[in-house]
This record gives sequence, structure tokens and C-alpha cells, in this order.
Amino acid sequence: MPKTVKNFNVGPSELFHGVADFLIDGLKNDDFIIPHRGPAFSEMYKNTEKAFYDFFEIPDDYSLFFTYSATEGMDILIEGVVDDSITHISNGDFGDLFSDLSKTLQKDVNLIKNIRGSRVEVDEMIVPTDVLALTANDTSTGVEYTSEDFKEIRNKFSEQLILVDATSSFGALYYDISSADAWLFSVQKNLGLPSGLGLLLVNDKIIQKAGKRQENGVNIGGHHNILSLNSFYSNYQTPSTPNIMLIQALAFVIGAYKAHFGDIYGLEKYTLEKAEYFYSMIEKIDTVSVLNTGKGKSKTTFVLDVPDGDVYDYIFSLLQGEGYSVSPGYGKFKEKNIRVANFPIHSRNDIEELFKVFHHQ
Amino acid sequence: MPKTVKNFNVGPSELFHGVADFLIDGLKNDDFIIPHRGPAFSEMYKNTEKAFYDFFEIPDDYSLFFTYSATEGMDILIEGVVDDSITHISNGDFGDLFSDLSKTLQKDVNLIKNIRGSRVEVDEMIVPTDVLALTANDTSTGVEYTSEDFKEIRNKFSEQLILVDATSSFGALYYDISSADAWLFSVQKNLGLPSGLGLLLVNDKIIQKAGKRQENGVNIGGHHNILSLNSFYSNYQTPSTPNIMLIQALAFVIGAYKAHFGDIYGLEKYTLEKAEYFYSMIEKIDTVSVLNTGKGKSKTTFVLDVPDGDVYDYIFSLLQGEGYSVSPGYGKFKEKNIRVANFPIHSRNDIEELFKVFHHQ
Repeated sequence: MPKTVKNFNVGPSELFHGVADFLIDGLKNDDFIIPHRGPAFSEMYKNTEKAFYDFFEIPDDYSLFFTYSATEGMDILIEGVVDDSITHISNGDFGDLFSDLSKTLQKDVNLIKNIRGSRVEVDEMIVPTDVLALTANDTSTGVEYTSEDFKEIRNKFSEQLILVDATSSFGALYYDISSADAWLFSVQKNLGLPSGLGLLLVNDKIIQKAGKRQENGVNIGGHHNILSLNSFYSNYQTPSTPNIMLIQALAFVIGAYKAHFGDIYGLEKYTLEKAEYFYSMIEKIDTVSVLNTGKGKSKTTFVLDVPDGDVYDYIFSLLQGEGYSVSPGYGKFKEKNIRVANFPIHSRNDIEELFKVFHHQ
Repeated sequence: MPKTVKNFNVGPSELFHGVADFLIDGLKNDDFIIPHRGPAFSEMYKNTEKAFYDFFEIPDDYSLFFTYSATEGMDILIEGVVDDSITHISNGDFGDLFSDLSKTLQKDVNLIKNIRGSRVEVDEMIVPTDVLALTANDTSTGVEYTSEDFKEIRNKFSEQLILVDATSSFGALYYDISSADAWLFSVQKNLGLPSGLGLLLVNDKIIQKAGKRQENGVNIGGHHNILSLNSFYSNYQTPSTPNIMLIQALAFVIGAYKAHFGDIYGLEKYTLEKAEYFYSMIEKIDTVSVLNTGKGKSKTTFVLDVPDGDVYDYIFSLLQGEGYSVSPGYGKFKEKNIRVANFPIHSRNDIEELFKVFHHQ
């Protein structure tokens, strides 16, 4: 197999420019071997948070907890704030996964689900529960809600706690964080880092709800529950030894984004222009089509329908032969879809080169 | 501050020989950017497991799950197998932490606790519950149970499920794994890797108990419960994106241990000889004494009592001035104890050099 020229997998992502060198230098200098109960760790947590809050314009009344993965963030939120029932909006397998976790944790689930590849629109959302969970970008179907959509959702459901899984889009697009009460994601997609670190942003309402539930004698989860995370966070610490390497690397990558894109609006513009180009080019390819032809076409993960198994195999081997790596479909759509990432590491030129291979077929 | 000559912190540990270079090479070659649902990941999981099982002589009827931290392993086990009540044996803060997690998860806890620095002996263990939890080595007090102790415990409590937190000793000593039903630990201590990966070894009894509880409608935890971990494990996968870098690095470090120490018995001999030397030398230092003077003096983390605050500050600055890093006491004993690690990265010569500094005082 030739060396991969460009990795368009939807996750884990190729590392952002400079990340590998940052990690290499840190390993050479023993930078990652610091005690997680010492002042150097707290300083690092604080610095990473500051860089993160400045670049992504996070309001001060949100707390940043380090989790282990996005999925763990879902567990923590469900255990922390869902009393008996929760409404889940699902536009694909990742919306389903969030909803399935609520069922596993024995909550009553009110599930509003799309027809595959289309989107549940805001006027179709009926939320009889006090918690609402959504997926910002479903990587299995390429269906997304934009920051504007979330504002509309926030206005419509002003009384509910809103939990957003933003795993596949946070880090490439601007979100008005105040549109939801909790945001969870991980670093190995649009944040261009290796896998092994999740992030969880929560506002005071989330912490208060968890506190009230614990006061009422409810089990809100083990060592990584909202209150234990919050209690250690007040000293910029974590309940257990975290991924120290990636917390440092997160501050680095935000610095790199600032240098490359200026600010979050520059980064979002970059993402949107590439997405527009991709969707305009894919129209010219006869053998594949975009799965979602309606509203909310994903800007960060493009999901293509491939009607014929032979064509599917042919495209994959063609791309592989030229050193391009893309993702198969998710789950049972493995050999029916092709998924292509549009993360900050991918340039307009990378996408142009990818289309040259498509056109060779 | 001068560059650290030797890091004797009790965790995270200094990296083992070659680990930094392995990670650097992997970063240069993009080795860590593989999809966690693809065959390359499963192959890697399988290879890491094989290396691990061979070196540490793990019986085949144990399953190896990758967790995020040792503490998470505690949560998973408590949620998975504890019905209403559990007996915890505690010889220090880490035994207390395990026990506190059971309380947080709303179990009735039967706690058998030592007097600080001594050990709960096997004949003092009265276990009226069907689950027993122990800490193999309590890093806060330097009190341990040996593999022989665990055999005795297994014989005495043949009907109970036995859960062992082996965080601070696994990787330096031989344990007869069949002496307990579950072992949990992490990689940033005696396994000489960066922080960010936990390991959980469970036998079929653990899986069956969790299965029975779930069948009975009990909540056994979210995305990382025993049954979901086991279900993905059957395909050498993980429920969420794991720390791919450290799973690869774990296989590397086991290869390095094999090359350095031959087998687990060679490694254990190395550990025991260094511990014996340390304890014989520390007797000659007037200003400090070993906290635990009874049975079960830890072989991997030495905990020293320092009666005087000025002496404490003096020793720390002396060591720091010479480039040696050691750990303060744990929690409220921060400025009363000095803790020194004896991990596989530490050589007899390193300890000799450390004592030269002690003797300079």
C-alpha cells in the first residue's frame, strides 16, 4: 500500500500542522510527565482553558471539564441531569447512539427520528420532557444543525436543558455556546489531535440540576460525575489522572488555528468555502450522489451514496492507489456510502486533488 | 530549576527506555491515525493483548478491556457486579477512594480499615458480602499485599468476587491473576507510559454476574459497562474511540521489558532487590523513617515519615537542587511524608545516587 498522501477519514483525523512536532518536542523534553496534583498541571489546565475560551468565544459561565471521550460525555450528562425521561432528536447512527445510552441508563426516551439522510426540522420537534439531546452533525448521514438552527431551538425550548453532541463539527465552525446548556465533543476530529481526550462544556444550570438530584439521593454516576468534575475543576484539577499530553497539545493546536485562520470566523469561512466547493464538484460525478439532498447538508463530513457495490470497490481502490484515504459508510451502510472529512487540516487544494482522482475513473 | 536527572515521582512515571522514541517514530510515520472500527485497529488490540498475556502470564479465561483510567475501572466494576453491598479493605487513601466510589454509586459499604501505615491482615478480614475489593499497593501509605497474600485471600474467600486495584504495583511484580476475579490498573506507573489509558482484566464470573444483573433490569452503567466492553472486545474493538497511541505503546513497552528483564520473574527480582536495598539504606538516615514498619512494606512506592516541617523542606530543596524529583505525601499528609517510586525505569544505580544526596545533608 502506498504511503497515504492525504487522510480524509472522518475520524480519527490526520493531525493538524505542527501537532506531531509539538508532541515530539514534548516527548524529547519530558514535558508530559508532570504530577496531576501539582501546580504545573493546574497552570496548564488554566492556560488550555483560556486559549480555548478566547478562540471559540466560550462564555465565562461555562465550565470546561476534561473527559476521556465524547461518548463518556453523553454518559456523564444523562446520569447527571436526566430525571426519568429525555427527548432525543436523531438524524442518524450517532443520534441513535446518544439515545441508546439514555435507554441503557434506564431513562424513558422520547425519540424523534428522521428518514435516513433527511433532517428533523425545528417545527417537527415536540419536547414533552425537561431535557432535550441533539447531535450537531451526524457523521453517519452527513446531516447537521447550524449555529442559527441552535438559536432557533434555544428560543423554542427555553425551559428545557439542551445537550448537544458536537463531536464531528466542533473545531471547524462557530457555535453560539449559549444556545445550549451542555456541549460535548472530542479532539480527534476537527481539533486535529490524536484520540484519547474528550471535552465537556456545561453551564451553571447543568451543575445546579446535578446538585439538586444528588441532594435528593439520586445516583448521578461515579468518579466522573458532574459534581466531582466540577469540584476538582475549581482547583483546575481532574478526578483521575487525565491525558496530560493531549491537554497540553490542545492549547498548542488552538495557537496553530489562531496563526492559520486568525479567529473562529476565519476558520468557519475556510470550512464553508471548502464545503461549497466539494458539493458543487460532486454534482459532476455521475456514479455517486450526496445522501442528504435537503436542509442541513454537513459542512464537515460529506456522506455520499454509492448505488453499486462494484463501483464502490472501484472508487475505494482507485483512491487508495493514489494515496487517498476516505471512510466507508457507517454500520450497515458500510458498503453503500463513502464518507469524506472536511476538517481544518484539509485544504481547498487537497479537495481539488481528490476530485482529480474521482475524475480519472 | 535544573533539568531533572531522575524522576522518582510515584505517578505519572518517567517513561521507560525507548518509549519516547517509539512515540516519536509513530508520530513521524502517522502510525497512530488509524480508524478504530477498521481491521488494523483490531489487529493491534489483539497483538497488544498477546504480548501482555505472554509476559504477565494472564490466564486465557480473562478478558482485557481498555478503559480510560484505573479509577474508571473501579466505577465499571462496582456498577457491573455489586448488587447492594460490598466489603472494602483499605490501607490508605486509595483504598478509601475505591470505597468512596462504592458509596457514591449508592452501595452499602462494609469498610475494614487499618491504622495508618499498618496493614489489615488476612485474619482480620471478615466479609459478609458477595464482593470484596482490595488495593494491592496503597501509594499513600506504602502498604501492599503480595501475590502470596492474594492466594491466601482467594482461599479464604472462595465464594466471593474479588476485585483488585493494582494501579501502583502491576507491571513490576508477578501476580497470580487467578487469585482475583478482576484486576484494574493504569499505564502511567509501573508500565512506564504517559497517562491516559487504563486496563481492566476480568474473568467470566464477572461477565456472567453483570449479564445476570442486566437481565434482572439493573442499571450496570453506560457506554463502558462490562457487557458493552465485552461485546466490542469479541471483535477486538472498543465502545468509543480509545487512546490508540497508548495501546500501541503498551505492546512496545512489554517488548522492552522482555528485552531488559527476560520475563516477569526477572522483572520481579529486579524490583525486589532494589526495594531491599532501599529499605536497608533508609535505616541509616536519621531524619526520616519508613511509615509502615509492619508487614506488607511496599516494593514499588516507598513512603517515608518526616517528623519536622523544616527538615521536610530542606530534603525537598536538596533533592531538587541535585535534579531529583520525588513526591510529597498524599492529601493531608502532603508535608509530612516523602514518597519515592521504585518502578522498572529506576535502576539500582539511580537509587544509589539518590542516597548520595540524602547523605550530603
